[in-house]
Amino acid sequence: MMQLGAMQDWKLRVTHLIDHAAREYGQREIVTRWADGGETRTNWAGIRRDALKMTQALRALGVGQGDRVATLAMNHHRHLVSWYGAAGVGGVLHTINPRLFEDQLEYIANHAEDRVLLYDAMFAPLVERMKPRWTTIEHYICFDSSDSAPAFEDWIGAHDGNAAWADGDERDPCMLCYTSGTTGNPKGVLYEHRSTMLHAMSILQPAAFALEPRSVMLPIVPMFHAASWGLPWAGAAVGAKFVYCANNDAAVLCDLMKNEGVTHSAGVPTVWLAMFQQLEKSGETIEQGLPHLRQTIIGGSAAPRTMIERLMRAGVRVAHAWGMTETSPVGTLGGTTDDWDELSFDQQVDVVAMQGRVLFGVELRTVDDDGHEQPRDGETAGALHVRGPWVVKRYFKADADAADADQWFDTGDVGTIRPDGILRLTDRAKDVIKSGGEWISSVDLENAAVGCAGVAEAAAIGLPHPRWDERPVLVVVRKPGSTVSAEEIRAHLAEHVAKWWLPDAILFSDALPHTGTGKISKKDLREQYRDVTLEA
Amino acid sequence: MMQLGAMQDWKLRVTHLIDHAAREYGQREIVTRWADGGETRTNWAGIRRDALKMTQALRALGVGQGDRVATLAMNHHRHLVSWYGAAGVGGVLHTINPRLFEDQLEYIANHAEDRVLLYDAMFAPLVERMKPRWTTIEHYICFDSSDSAPAFEDWIGAHDGNAAWADGDERDPCMLCYTSGTTGNPKGVLYEHRSTMLHAMSILQPAAFALEPRSVMLPIVPMFHAASWGLPWAGAAVGAKFVYCANNDAAVLCDLMKNEGVTHSAGVPTVWLAMFQQLEKSGETIEQGLPHLRQTIIGGSAAPRTMIERLMRAGVRVAHAWGMTETSPVGTLGGTTDDWDELSFDQQVDVVAMQGRVLFGVELRTVDDDGHEQPRDGETAGALHVRGPWVVKRYFKADADAADADQWFDTGDVGTIRPDGILRLTDRAKDVIKSGGEWISSVDLENAAVGCAGVAEAAAIGLPHPRWDERPVLVVVRKPGSTVSAEEIRAHLAEHVAKWWLPDAILFSDALPHTGTGKISKKDLREQYRDVTLEA
Repeated sequence: MMQLGAMQDWKLRVTHLIDHAAREYGQREIVTRWADGGETRTNWAGIRRDALKMTQALRALGVGQGDRVATLAMNHHRHLVSWYGAAGVGGVLHTINPRLFEDQLEYIANHAEDRVLLYDAMFAPLVERMKPRWTTIEHYICFDSSDSAPAFEDWIGAHDGNAAWADGDERDPCMLCYTSGTTGNPKGVLYEHRSTMLHAMSILQPAAFALEPRSVMLPIVPMFHAASWGLPWAGAAVGAKFVYCANNDAAVLCDLMKNEGVTHSAGVPTVWLAMFQQLEKSGETIEQGLPHLRQTIIGGSAAPRTMIERLMRAGVRVAHAWGMTETSPVGTLGGTTDDWDELSFDQQVDVVAMQGRVLFGVELRTVDDDGHEQPRDGETAGALHVRGPWVVKRYFKADADAADADQWFDTGDVGTIRPDGILRLTDRAKDVIKSGGEWISSVDLENAAVGCAGVAEAAAIGLPHPRWDERPVLVVVRKPGSTVSAEEIRAHLAEHVAKWWLPDAILFSDALPHTGTGKISKKDLREQYRDVTLEA
Repeated sequence: MMQLGAMQDWKLRVTHLIDHAAREYGQREIVTRWADGGETRTNWAGIRRDALKMTQALRALGVGQGDRVATLAMNHHRHLVSWYGAAGVGGVLHTINPRLFEDQLEYIANHAEDRVLLYDAMFAPLVERMKPRWTTIEHYICFDSSDSAPAFEDWIGAHDGNAAWADGDERDPCMLCYTSGTTGNPKGVLYEHRSTMLHAMSILQPAAFALEPRSVMLPIVPMFHAASWGLPWAGAAVGAKFVYCANNDAAVLCDLMKNEGVTHSAGVPTVWLAMFQQLEKSGETIEQGLPHLRQTIIGGSAAPRTMIERLMRAGVRVAHAWGMTETSPVGTLGGTTDDWDELSFDQQVDVVAMQGRVLFGVELRTVDDDGHEQPRDGETAGALHVRGPWVVKRYFKADADAADADQWFDTGDVGTIRPDGILRLTDRAKDVIKSGGEWISSVDLENAAVGCAGVAEAAAIGLPHPRWDERPVLVVVRKPGSTVSAEEIRAHLAEHVAKWWLPDAILFSDALPHTGTGKISKKDLREQYRDVTLEA
């Protein structure tokens, strides 16, 4: 075939991001507030220079193509340098979550075959304990100064930065994140340069993080959590200013947001509760205390309605992000509807409380137990499947694909999809109650129950039923002094859920079992109530 | 090497865009206002269904992989269908500019080896004249009803849309656009699925077109011009509503912008002058007449400062886009500076009057005559080079690459780059005046000259000089009744340009030669004044 013509060759490699940021936005600041109150100010040109020095330091250790370089660290600019340094030498950045149990820490570092670990001094005691259990780590570097390991600045400071990034295929891996799965060993998701780049370019858009050169981003989300939602990569594409807070203290966050001109934030909802308290303490409104803030993206878990309302009334855009480590992680993002301007404030909050729409590239479907696709009617719940360019195909070192032949990956979430594509998560698949072929959301039942006066906490579980397979049972913890009855709770529920959702039994308990992360342990609860017998 | 794990396989093929738009935003409207005042309303689901029918109609003609499918048409939804239909069958959409000379129309259709032509009825007389000269077109389809060719709706209406998109490599071509170069034959730029997709994903970002699901886009830029700036592809990625106006009449544009809720517009500056007049006629301010408009992107040529001011005062974001057919076409986009909020209104207008910054992926440099890179000081002008994933490597059917070994493509523009990356175009390379190794901008000289009372039009050209190689000569057309003298013009210029820029001669003429597109023909002017001798 004749030569027809061509556009240019340009690999989707993440080093393009830092080159661009340093060239076009070199003076744009990267600020770190350390836990001790100290501050370091550098910029995108400085991040690139240090990342290049780090590639030299890694090469001097014989670490390169495909080697895993781990971090155990909070949010700061040296951690950011290490992202580009590890990927830039052709290696794989492995961000370890320091909140994991020690057995998990042992497992994942050994499973990843990490060769280098960069860690914060605050984790030095943990590192010392773990050293005998970690079998592959050859080199320890401390991000701060330390007695027992070379300090990061000294380690890279021995080099001049006069180096080149490693070249390679765009489908080479550049990052490894383990899921902190609730059962079995953690699973590693191996992000590729290509998947990372497409994700980074996508999340810039207005319906996602709306990042532009003027943006000032304070990522509350840790850098060890799900690629920090892709922000260290995406921010470089527009040269955004970054403000890092190494300890996420509410008072410090408020100070930084006000005095560094923070426009964008991203994190879990709990941090906002602490910041609201901090503002109340200082007698400031959101507008006074966070005068530059334009938007906050909330992920990890759903934000309480009152939090959404409070931020929206202050003129801050609030959006839920849904995703998981397996989706790089952004799958959907809360956005506006076509008729947004005609909605009442309450209706707008209703929309924001949902999980939003997919970004281009990501596809969702919900299926029933037989794998049949469910209608997009906003009502029929199903198991949520996802696929797309930044969704996992196969876990690290796994023998088989995690996605099916059509690349659908089962998220373990249950939800509904509206005709306009807006996702609403209703449950985790393992908690949904399957009654007569229909699905009852344990979360919706619980939310309705805690709205009843006198109810402190409630958990809905499905128990075996001779006719309906499963029927809901509600376990309730009363508020101190309350004598609320099962009949009163049932009457309250009847006003909020379908009649066939009403629990077959409402039982009272002094306390509910919780997991290490503070969620109700449905697994323990089902075990605890397994002898309850429901009659047809 | 062991299997490490992987993210999903997902090709950068443009059919993903229309699948996404139809699935997630199927009911979002695509509106066409025809030249006769009629209106057609469809939606993204309808566009996809019709594009699939078109793939069946093309396959029935034996047209498929790699075949060129041409259009000669204005902006309307059927034209949009044909973009996805041609690319969706694995073919190459070739949008022909109906404003070209007939010799050019003959050349490009034959050079492209177009097999099918879809055209608007208004161009039927032109098509009939050209038919004997077009040697490869086998099938003619009329977008409207026609006596001499099948009507588009009938042609695709014979099929049911139950078809699949063609598969292929992501570097397969999907579109062909010819440059209307000023010298030699037009050159074809062959866009690939991959380059088109990366461009589409990139231009969504806030610093570019800021497109989101709520956006209502009225593209004034024709669909036959430089891929319509990529909007038909990018708009599908967010399900934006599109409003097409088949004749770009100012009164109709104003009506559509008001009544269809248009938020985004993109086009050449001249249309805005006509719309301003229309608003004045109806006694409306911009805020009253265009109440939903949030931003307008202006390209093709620079917007007059008064136009920028007027739109900005009405709260509309104005941004210049710089690019060319060879860059897909977006290279830079006007944006804000880091210190934007501290700038005065006039200073903000100064920034907006420039060409803006590159989008991530695109790289710029300026070089002198010896190919040495010029400093980014905002003052030193140089030949503008560009490279990136959506920049041409080799023209269609060319024997050699258009870009050099490092992929730098010489744009033919001359400009300066500020330390913060903002590009300011100062001239076309062939018009710049090279005096003693330094470059004088003919455009800047002309702009200064027309600011002098009594000057209607002015053109600066470089003529040979025994000592300085070239020196500027200014040819001036006086306003009717004016007797402005060379000395007065020189005195005026001395206040606005460096002393060594002052023309060696200021000559008067009754008229200047213009090109077919209304620009001053410097080539003819240099020919006309070639006997003028400048002395040392």
